[in-house]
Amino acid sequence: MKYMKRMLGALLGGAIMLGALALPAVSLAADKSKVVIQVSVNDPATWNLALNNAKNIQKDVGKDNVDIEIVSFGPGIAMLKAESEVANRVNEAVDSGVQVLACQNTMRGQNLNKEDMNGKVGYVPSGVVEIMRRQQQGYAYLRP
Amino acid sequence: MKYMKRMLGALLGGAIMLGALALPAVSLAADKSKVVIQVSVNDPATWNLALNNAKNIQKDVGKDNVDIEIVSFGPGIAMLKAESEVANRVNEAVDSGVQVLACQNTMRGQNLNKEDMNGKVGYVPSGVVEIMRRQQQGYAYLRP
Amino acid sequence: MKYMKRMLGALLGGAIMLGALALPAVSLAADKSKVVIQVSVNDPATWNLALNNAKNIQKDVGKDNVDIEIVSFGPGIAMLKAESEVANRVNEAVDSGVQVLACQNTMRGQNLNKEDMNGKVGYVPSGVVEIMRRQQQGYAYLRP
Repeated sequence: MKYMKRMLGALLGGAIMLGALALPAVSLAADKSKVVIQVSVNDPATWNLALNNAKNIQKDVGKDNVDIEIVSFGPGIAMLKAESEVANRVNEAVDSGVQVLACQNTMRGQNLNKEDMNGKVGYVPSGVVEIMRRQQQGYAYLRP
Repeated sequence: MKYMKRMLGALLGGAIMLGALALPAVSLAADKSKVVIQVSVNDPATWNLALNNAKNIQKDVGKDNVDIEIVSFGPGIAMLKAESEVANRVNEAVDSGVQVLACQNTMRGQNLNKEDMNGKVGYVPSGVVEIMRRQQQGYAYLRP
Repeated sequence: MKYMKRMLGALLGGAIMLGALALPAVSLAADKSKVVIQVSVNDPATWNLALNNAKNIQKDVGKDNVDIEIVSFGPGIAMLKAESEVANRVNEAVDSGVQVLACQNTMRGQNLNKEDMNGKVGYVPSGVVEIMRRQQQGYAYLRP
């Protein structure tokens, strides 16, 4: 009987420990949605689809319940140039909370500098590394 | 010695607890395969590739060992219209256990209603949200 | 007081157990980066983009810190033929540690055999199953 009590104490102790240690995993699962959207083609129809996707996700799950990141690299970098035909929509996306990021590897390869780019976008050293890392952090991936 | 026994009891208790609590994670890992296939282009060659992919996965891992979902949105919605040139193959896919889903956001934008669509397909309010959520649930993502 | 000591012992025991059992998860999270790159189009520009992506990832995170796999299937299989216009770059990728894999389902469908293919590439029974499984093993997915 005394042993049983001790066992119970041990089990209880274990349960408390486990509860404490398991919490981060549980709260991770309950975290807000996260999605990284890749733009790697020089095609305004695809750019508009990517921007529509971001907008629809915000509308459907609620702007505050989702982190959306658009990453442009390769031929897709043209979407984020200052004179891009979707520049206004890119501005709207940034203003609505979407992170819009240009790949600096690509910019170097195409002799683009920040003055050539939409003033509202952010930068990452490598678009593909960003996309890889985001997925490892639990982001869903979307390639329109 | 008595203390050691107690410790052993505690450790044993902890192990049993851990075993019980860890089981869901283990069985999740052993779950059947899951994959969501995106169709977002108006291109019958890509539609056929997506349908081939679904068929090959079923053949290679066994129909009962995998959940396959095809989600069509944007220009890809045309794949799931009643008069689509791959309508027969879409029917076959549904009959073989593939979930084939049309995006109702896209349908609204293109003034399509259910009468315009293949009678066998299902519907989701938002194709991109479905794809994002499925990945969060452990589905692999395929964009043919 | 004696009970407290026992509880402490139990908790400590639990913590040690947990530590031991939790280690695999922790070390998985700390594992090197992994990414599977899909090539499913017959388009040399996309092949070059995929090869650039692999190269940039190696450069940016360090060759030894990442496992990169390029999987070609469907119309993308042409990238891995012996006479492919990117054959030299495919060779370089393999030599630098990138796994480059051809889908044997696709080869059968196109009446290709290993003599038709780049001598440096590897083979998988099904490209899409490989891509699905890799994601389930924690690989990020990239579709240039």
